[in-house]
Amino acid sequence: MKFDDLERVFERLPFATIDHLRPLTQGHQEVVFCLGKTAEQVVAIAERLAAASGTFLATRAEAEHREALAARFPRAEVNALGRTVYLPPDPEPAPTGRGTVLVVTAGTSDLPVAEEAAVTARALRNRVERLTDVGVAGIHRLLTQTDALRHAAVIIVVAGMEGALPSVVGGLVKVPVIAVPTSVGYGASFGGLAALLAMLNSCASGVTVVNIDNGFGAAAAASRINHT
Amino acid sequence: MKFDDLERVFERLPFATIDHLRPLTQGHQEVVFCLGKTAEQVVAIAERLAAASGTFLATRAEAEHREALAARFPRAEVNALGRTVYLPPDPEPAPTGRGTVLVVTAGTSDLPVAEEAAVTARALRNRVERLTDVGVAGIHRLLTQTDALRHAAVIIVVAGMEGALPSVVGGLVKVPVIAVPTSVGYGASFGGLAALLAMLNSCASGVTVVNIDNGFGAAAAASRINHT
Amino acid sequence: MKFDDLERVFERLPFATIDHLRPLTQGHQEVVFCLGKTAEQVVAIAERLAAASGTFLATRAEAEHREALAARFPRAEVNALGRTVYLPPDPEPAPTGRGTVLVVTAGTSDLPVAEEAAVTARALRNRVERLTDVGVAGIHRLLTQTDALRHAAVIIVVAGMEGALPSVVGGLVKVPVIAVPTSVGYGASFGGLAALLAMLNSCASGVTVVNIDNGFGAAAAASRINHT
Amino acid sequence: MKFDDLERVFERLPFATIDHLRPLTQGHQEVVFCLGKTAEQVVAIAERLAAASGTFLATRAEAEHREALAARFPRAEVNALGRTVYLPPDPEPAPTGRGTVLVVTAGTSDLPVAEEAAVTARALRNRVERLTDVGVAGIHRLLTQTDALRHAAVIIVVAGMEGALPSVVGGLVKVPVIAVPTSVGYGASFGGLAALLAMLNSCASGVTVVNIDNGFGAAAAASRINHT
Amino acid sequence: MKFDDLERVFERLPFATIDHLRPLTQGHQEVVFCLGKTAEQVVAIAERLAAASGTFLATRAEAEHREALAARFPRAEVNALGRTVYLPPDPEPAPTGRGTVLVVTAGTSDLPVAEEAAVTARALRNRVERLTDVGVAGIHRLLTQTDALRHAAVIIVVAGMEGALPSVVGGLVKVPVIAVPTSVGYGASFGGLAALLAMLNSCASGVTVVNIDNGFGAAAAASRINHT
Amino acid sequence: MKFDDLERVFERLPFATIDHLRPLTQGHQEVVFCLGKTAEQVVAIAERLAAASGTFLATRAEAEHREALAARFPRAEVNALGRTVYLPPDPEPAPTGRGTVLVVTAGTSDLPVAEEAAVTARALRNRVERLTDVGVAGIHRLLTQTDALRHAAVIIVVAGMEGALPSVVGGLVKVPVIAVPTSVGYGASFGGLAALLAMLNSCASGVTVVNIDNGFGAAAAASRINHT
Amino acid sequence: MKFDDLERVFERLPFATIDHLRPLTQGHQEVVFCLGKTAEQVVAIAERLAAASGTFLATRAEAEHREALAARFPRAEVNALGRTVYLPPDPEPAPTGRGTVLVVTAGTSDLPVAEEAAVTARALRNRVERLTDVGVAGIHRLLTQTDALRHAAVIIVVAGMEGALPSVVGGLVKVPVIAVPTSVGYGASFGGLAALLAMLNSCASGVTVVNIDNGFGAAAAASRINHT
Amino acid sequence: MKFDDLERVFERLPFATIDHLRPLTQGHQEVVFCLGKTAEQVVAIAERLAAASGTFLATRAEAEHREALAARFPRAEVNALGRTVYLPPDPEPAPTGRGTVLVVTAGTSDLPVAEEAAVTARALRNRVERLTDVGVAGIHRLLTQTDALRHAAVIIVVAGMEGALPSVVGGLVKVPVIAVPTSVGYGASFGGLAALLAMLNSCASGVTVVNIDNGFGAAAAASRINHT
Repeated sequence: MKFDDLERVFERLPFATIDHLRPLTQGHQEVVFCLGKTAEQVVAIAERLAAASGTFLATRAEAEHREALAARFPRAEVNALGRTVYLPPDPEPAPTGRGTVLVVTAGTSDLPVAEEAAVTARALRNRVERLTDVGVAGIHRLLTQTDALRHAAVIIVVAGMEGALPSVVGGLVKVPVIAVPTSVGYGASFGGLAALLAMLNSCASGVTVVNIDNGFGAAAAASRINHT
Repeated sequence: MKFDDLERVFERLPFATIDHLRPLTQGHQEVVFCLGKTAEQVVAIAERLAAASGTFLATRAEAEHREALAARFPRAEVNALGRTVYLPPDPEPAPTGRGTVLVVTAGTSDLPVAEEAAVTARALRNRVERLTDVGVAGIHRLLTQTDALRHAAVIIVVAGMEGALPSVVGGLVKVPVIAVPTSVGYGASFGGLAALLAMLNSCASGVTVVNIDNGFGAAAAASRINHT
Repeated sequence: MKFDDLERVFERLPFATIDHLRPLTQGHQEVVFCLGKTAEQVVAIAERLAAASGTFLATRAEAEHREALAARFPRAEVNALGRTVYLPPDPEPAPTGRGTVLVVTAGTSDLPVAEEAAVTARALRNRVERLTDVGVAGIHRLLTQTDALRHAAVIIVVAGMEGALPSVVGGLVKVPVIAVPTSVGYGASFGGLAALLAMLNSCASGVTVVNIDNGFGAAAAASRINHT
Repeated sequence: MKFDDLERVFERLPFATIDHLRPLTQGHQEVVFCLGKTAEQVVAIAERLAAASGTFLATRAEAEHREALAARFPRAEVNALGRTVYLPPDPEPAPTGRGTVLVVTAGTSDLPVAEEAAVTARALRNRVERLTDVGVAGIHRLLTQTDALRHAAVIIVVAGMEGALPSVVGGLVKVPVIAVPTSVGYGASFGGLAALLAMLNSCASGVTVVNIDNGFGAAAAASRINHT
Repeated sequence: MKFDDLERVFERLPFATIDHLRPLTQGHQEVVFCLGKTAEQVVAIAERLAAASGTFLATRAEAEHREALAARFPRAEVNALGRTVYLPPDPEPAPTGRGTVLVVTAGTSDLPVAEEAAVTARALRNRVERLTDVGVAGIHRLLTQTDALRHAAVIIVVAGMEGALPSVVGGLVKVPVIAVPTSVGYGASFGGLAALLAMLNSCASGVTVVNIDNGFGAAAAASRINHT
Repeated sequence: MKFDDLERVFERLPFATIDHLRPLTQGHQEVVFCLGKTAEQVVAIAERLAAASGTFLATRAEAEHREALAARFPRAEVNALGRTVYLPPDPEPAPTGRGTVLVVTAGTSDLPVAEEAAVTARALRNRVERLTDVGVAGIHRLLTQTDALRHAAVIIVVAGMEGALPSVVGGLVKVPVIAVPTSVGYGASFGGLAALLAMLNSCASGVTVVNIDNGFGAAAAASRINHT
Repeated sequence: MKFDDLERVFERLPFATIDHLRPLTQGHQEVVFCLGKTAEQVVAIAERLAAASGTFLATRAEAEHREALAARFPRAEVNALGRTVYLPPDPEPAPTGRGTVLVVTAGTSDLPVAEEAAVTARALRNRVERLTDVGVAGIHRLLTQTDALRHAAVIIVVAGMEGALPSVVGGLVKVPVIAVPTSVGYGASFGGLAALLAMLNSCASGVTVVNIDNGFGAAAAASRINHT
Repeated sequence: MKFDDLERVFERLPFATIDHLRPLTQGHQEVVFCLGKTAEQVVAIAERLAAASGTFLATRAEAEHREALAARFPRAEVNALGRTVYLPPDPEPAPTGRGTVLVVTAGTSDLPVAEEAAVTARALRNRVERLTDVGVAGIHRLLTQTDALRHAAVIIVVAGMEGALPSVVGGLVKVPVIAVPTSVGYGASFGGLAALLAMLNSCASGVTVVNIDNGFGAAAAASRINHT
C-alpha cells in the first residue's frame, strides 16, 4: 500500500485522526481511551467507529462519558465498575481465540482493573473466566485452584500492594502470565509502584508486565497471544 | 501429588534447593542465574541439572563463571557477548514452538541483552531470528522490514535510551510484542528507567514489558507464548 | 545603561515587580503566569502591561482568572482549552518570524498543551500550523505528513504517555524540534515523568525538551529560533 | 542514675564514644559496625569491648577488617560469607532465648545476608536454624516445610528480587516474621528497593521490615522478641 | 489437611474469598480492610465474619463504611479518629498476651494512626497503654517516661516528619520496638517517605518497621510478639 | 534540673504534651502547627500558651482554624495569605535581635511562604523587611537592590521553580542566607523538589536550606542567628 | 523514494545498520556514539562513514576507542577532555551556519561536556566560541560579558550543581538558549538530576534542555537552529 | 564599582575565571573545590590565590591533588581524613568570629565530613571545638554534654543513617544549628538521602540543612553566622 492510499484510510476530525487501518495492522479497530477527552469528543469518535464496523469499546469512561455514550447508543453495555462502555456487534460473533483468558485477582479492591480486562478480552473475541480474591497471604485459596490455572490459554493476574501473586502463579503453570499491578494500597505502595517493581522483578520466568491499572493493555496482549 | 512425594523431587544442596518439578510445572528445567553466586556454586548446580537431563543453561555468567563451566563441560557453548553458557542436549532436538521468535534491537549497544534472549529462546526450543540496529531515529530502517515483523510468532524488542521502538513495532503487527528495556544510555536514562517507563506507557496496545536488561525473561515469556 | 536608569524601568506593585526591560532584553514583554496568583493580582498586572504596550498574554488562566480578565478587557480572546487569555494589539501586526511554527500532537488528550503553545507562538508574532493525533502507534498517520514536517521552520512536538513522537519526528527532518512532554497518561507515567525522560533520552539528535505541560515555554523557544 | 554517673560509663576514644551502658539498656553490648571505619579503629573498639566483657561481634567486616581482627584475636571466628568476626565468650554460654530463630532465604544469592543474621542471633544468645532457597517461584519447596516454620519462635525471611516470600510465610504461621529485603537483583530492583517496598506492602498482617541487607538488624529484633 | 478439605473452609462471595482458616494459621480471623471496597461489600464480609465468630474488626473505614456498619451492627464500637469499627465478642474475653502493648506517639497529628494500632491491639486480645506527644524536639518529655517504656512487653512508636523517635526509644529499652512512619508532614516529607527511610536506617538495633500509616500492621505484629 | 522537676513543666492534655521548658531551652515558647489538628485541639493548645505567656503564634492555620482562633481571641491578628494567627503580647515589646531579617521572594506566587516567614520573625522579636518579585530571569531587578541585601543581618530567600535566587544572593553578600524552596511550579518541579535540590547544590558557599514551603522554619533559624 | 530504494541506502553490518540517508534527512551523516560499543565495532562503523563521505565524528570515546581510531585514522583529531575523535574533511570546508554558537560553562568541572559540544558544533559546520567559569555565585563574571552573549546566534549553557546559569543567561538575551545539565556535583545533585530539574523549571522563557552531560545533543540542536 | 572595573578583578585562566572580588563580597577568597579538576588545574588555581593573599584552602582533595599541592606548597597542611589542603597565612591570625563553632558527629564514620567542616571553619577564622560519636541510639552520651552544646555560638551536627541527631540537639539549645547529612549508611539510606530528608523535616525549629557530605558548606554558613 502506498502513502497516498494510506492517507485515504485516516479519518481526520479536528481533534483526532482515526486510523481505519487498525483492523488490518492490529487485528481490531481502535479503542476509545476516554481519559482527558470531553464527552463530546468521545461520542464523536465512537460514532465514526460504530459507523465503520458496528461496534466500539470505550475504556476509562467516567460517569459523564458513560452517560453520554449510553444516551447516544442505547444498545451499548455499560460496566460502571470497570469503567467501560461496549457496543457489541449485532449479532455478537463467537470468540475466535484458541483458548480461555483467565483473569485472576488478588483482592476485592483489584476488581475494577480486572473488569476492564475482562470486558476488553471479550470485545477482542476471547472466552473469559474469572478467579477472585486469591492473594498470597492465604496461599491455599490459590492452590486449590491449580486446575483452573492450568487449563487457561493465557492468565492475567491483577494485584496491588506487594504484587506477589504473579510470581506464585507463574511458578505453577506453563502458560503465559501477564501481570497487572494496581494502585491498590497506601503509603509505600506509591500508587502501585511497589506492585509494579515486584512484578518486574518476579523470580518466576516468563511473567510479563503492563502499566499500573492497565487492565485494557493486559487484555489486548492476552488477545494477541490467544489469536497467534 | 502429595507433599511427601513433592519433597523427593527437591534436591537440597547446602546453598540451593533444586526443583526437579520445573519441567512438569514450567515446561523446562531450572536455569542457572549466576549473578551473586560463586563459580563453585554455579558448577555444582549445573552438574545436578546436567545429570538430570543432559542439558543446562546459565545466564549472567561473568568471566569466572564462564571459565569454570567451560572447563567442567567442554561441550558447552559459551556466548561472551550474551554472558550465557549453554550445554545443548546431545543430539539437540528440533524446535517445538509453533513459529519463530524474532529478536529486534534498537542499537548496537543493546546486543548483549538481545543475545541473552536469543540463546535462551533456542535453549527453550524455539526457532530464533534477529533484526539489528533499527531504532526509531531512522524509522525507514524498520519500515523496510515490515514483512519480517509480520511473519514472526512473537517479537522481542530490545531498546535502551528512550525505549520508543516497541511502540512503533506494536503498531505495525498483530502478534505479541515483548519489550525489553536496556540500561543503554546515560544521564536521565537512570540505568534503563527511562526506557522501562516508556515501554510501560506504550500507546500501542498489546505490548508487555520485562525487567531492565532481562533478555532471559523475555525469551522465557516468548517461549511460553510460542508453545501454548 | 546604569543601575539607576534600570530601576526606573521596573514598576513595583506590592506583590510584583514588573520588568519593562523585557522587550529590549527578551524581544517581548512579560507574560502573565496565572498559577498561584489571585484574579485580582492577574488583572492588576495585565493592566500595567496593556497600559505599556496595548497587549498582554496570560497563561495557565483558570476559570476565575479568565472571567476576571474577560470582564476587564472585553476585546481579549479567551481560549478555554489552552487556558490562555490574549489581548492582541489593535491592529494585530503581521508575523515577523522567518517561517512557520508547526505544532504536532500525539493524541487528542495533548491538545490543551498544544493550544497553549499555538496561542503563545501567535502572540510572539509567528505563523502557526497544527498537526493533530499522529502518535507512533499508527506510524503511517505521521509518515503521510512528511512534507508538512519538512516545510516548517521549527516543530513543537507535544506528547504524553511514552513520549516517542519527538524521536521519530526528529529523525525525519533537519529543522529544530522542541519536545513537550505532557502529563497525559496514568500509573507509571508519573504525571508526565515517563514522557519527559523518554524525550531527554531521544536517540534523534537535535531534539530539545521543555518542562512537562509547558506549551508556553516551547513556543517561546520556538519564537526565539524563528526570529534569530 | 544521674548524669555524672552516666559519664563514667562512656569510654571516649578520639574517634568513638563507647557506651558501656548498653548491656543494661539494650541487653547486650555494642556491636562493631565496620563500614566506613579503618581497620585500626575497628581493632581499637574491639579491644575495649573484649576487655570489658570477653566477647565482641563485628559486622560488615571487609577483608582488611577481618584480617586485622583475626590477627589480633586468634580465637575469633571469621565468617567471610556473612562478613562477620565473632569472639565468643570462653566458655560460650547456652542460649537464653525462649525458642528458635529460623532464618529462611529465598535464593542462593541471599545467603550473605542470612549468614550475618544467623551469626548475630547466635552472638545474642539464641538458638538458630536455617532453611535455604525456598523462593515463591517453586512454592512447593516452602509448603513441604510448614512444620519447621510453625515450630520457630521468630522467623527471619531474607529475600531479594520481588520480595514475595515474607507474605507467603506470614500467611502460614502465627509467630512474628521479620522481613529482610536484599539487594539481590538487577535493573528495576534498584538495589533492593523493589523487595523493600513489596515487604512494606505485604498483605500478610504482622510482617515487619528492616533495612535492605540488614541481617544484623533483623537478628537484633528477633533476639529482643525471643528474650521478651 | 488436604486440598479438598481446605476448599470447604473458604467462603466464596462474588467479590471476595473469605478464609476461615485464618484463626488456625494466623491466630485470629480476617480483618476487613475497607479501602477500595464499597459499603455494601464491607457489610457483607463483616456479616460472614460475625456469623462465624461473633466479632469483627474493620479498618480504614471511611464515613460511609462506618455508618453502614453501625446501622447493621448496633453493638459495634466506632472510632472515628482511628477509622475503625469493632464488634467485640459478647462478653469480651480477657487479654491473652503476656504483657502490655505500649503505643507511643511523637505528635498530636499522629494520633489517628496510633488509635488504629490501639484498637487493633485490643481486638487481638492485648492490654494496651498510650503515651502521647513525646517527640524528640523536647526530649525530656520522653526521658521522664523511661519507666513506662521499660515495663511494656512491646512498644509501637508512631511518628511522622523526621521519624527520629523510634531510634531514641530503641536505645532506651530492651523490648521489641515497632516503628510506624506516618504521612504527617509536608514538602520533603513526601507523604511519609522521610519518616519511613529514617526508621529503616535507625541506628538503634532491633527496631523494625511497617508501612506508612499502618497502625493496623504494627498492632498485628505486636500481638504476634505478645502471644509468642 | 532533675527529671522530677522536669515533669512539672510539661502540661499533659489528652492529645498533646505542652513543653513549658521551651522558653528556657529554645528562647521562645512552642508554636502551634495546625496541620493535622482539629480546630478544637488548636484552640485548646493556644489557650494554654496564652495563659502561660500572654501570646501565641499558630502556623498553617486553615480557614477553620483561623476562624476558631479569631473567635476565641479577638485581639489575635489573622494573616490569611500567610495562614498565620498571632496574638501579640500586650503591649508588644520592641525587637530584640541585633539586626534586620530581610525576606526576599522570587515571584508573586511565593508570597504565602514569605508571609509565614515574616510573621514568624516578628513574633520571635525581629525587625523584618521585604523585597518582592526579584527572580533571576530579570536579574537587574535584584542587582539594583544590592544595598538593601548588604544591610540585612540575615536574609531569607523564598523561591520556587528552579530555585536559583539564593545562589545569586549568596554570591552578593557576606551575611547568612537561608533558602526556602516553595512548591510553586508544575510538572518537573515535583512539588518543590526541583527548587529544593537546586538550593542544596548551591554553588554559593554559606547558603543553608529548610524544608519546602517552610517559611516558619526559615524564620526560626533566622531569629536564632539574629539573637546569637 | 520507495521502500525498495530506501533499503539500498542502509548498509547492514552484523552489529549495526548504517543509515546513509541521514545527510538527506538530518543534514549530516550519522555520528558514532561509542558508549557500549567495542573498539572494533567503532572502527568498523567509522570506516564505512569515512568511505562514504571522507569524515566522521565519534563521541563518548573512551581511551581504548580513541587509541583504536587514532591508529586507524592518523589524520583524525583526538580531544581527550571532550572524549571525541573527529576526522575533518580534507580540506575542511568553511562553516555554513548563519552565526556563532557560543558555549558557556559555569565551572571548570563542566569543561568536558562543553568540549564535546564545541567539537560537535564545529563538525556540523558552525563557528564556535567559548566563555568559561562564569557561574552565578560570582554573577559579575557573567554580567561583564553581556555583549558576547548578545552577539551569538545560539547559546549553549553548560552547568552542574544547581544549574542556575541558563536562567540568568536566558533573561539577558533574545537568542535561543540550550541548557546542558552536567553530572558535576555530589550528594543531592544525584548525578546531575538537580541541575536537570532546575533547567526544566527555568523561569526564563525560551530555554530548552537536553539530557545530562549531553554536549553532543546540545550542539546538534544548536546546529539545526544555526542552519535553519 | 562599574563593570569595566569589575573585569579587572577577574583573572581568566583557560579553564577558570578567578574572582578576586570574593573577599569583598563574601568575606573570604575563593576555596578550591578539587572534584572534577585535574591536579594541574588545582595547583594553578592555588598558585593564583596564594599569590594574591598568602593562603588558600582546597577541599575534596583526592590523593593526587593532595600530593601535587603538598609538593608545590611545602608549608601547606594536609588533612587526609577530611580531604583538605590548607595553606595558613604566615603568621596565622587570631580567630575573628564572635564565638566557637562546635562540630558534633553522630558516629565514627561521619568523621571525614566533620573534619572538612572543622578545617574550613578554622580557615575562615573561627574557633573550633569537636564532640564525637554521640548518636541518638545512646542518648545519654549527648545529654551529659548539654553544657558544651549551650556554650557554642553555632553548632554543626554531622550525621548519617537516620539523621536524627540535629533534631535532638536543636531541641536542647537556642543557638543556630546547621545539619549536615552524610552518605554513611547502606540500603535504604540511598547515599544519604534518608538523613537529608530527616533533617529537612526536623521537628526542632531553627535547624537548617546543607547538601549531603557538605562539611565545607556547613562551615561556610557557620562562619557567616559567627561573623555577623
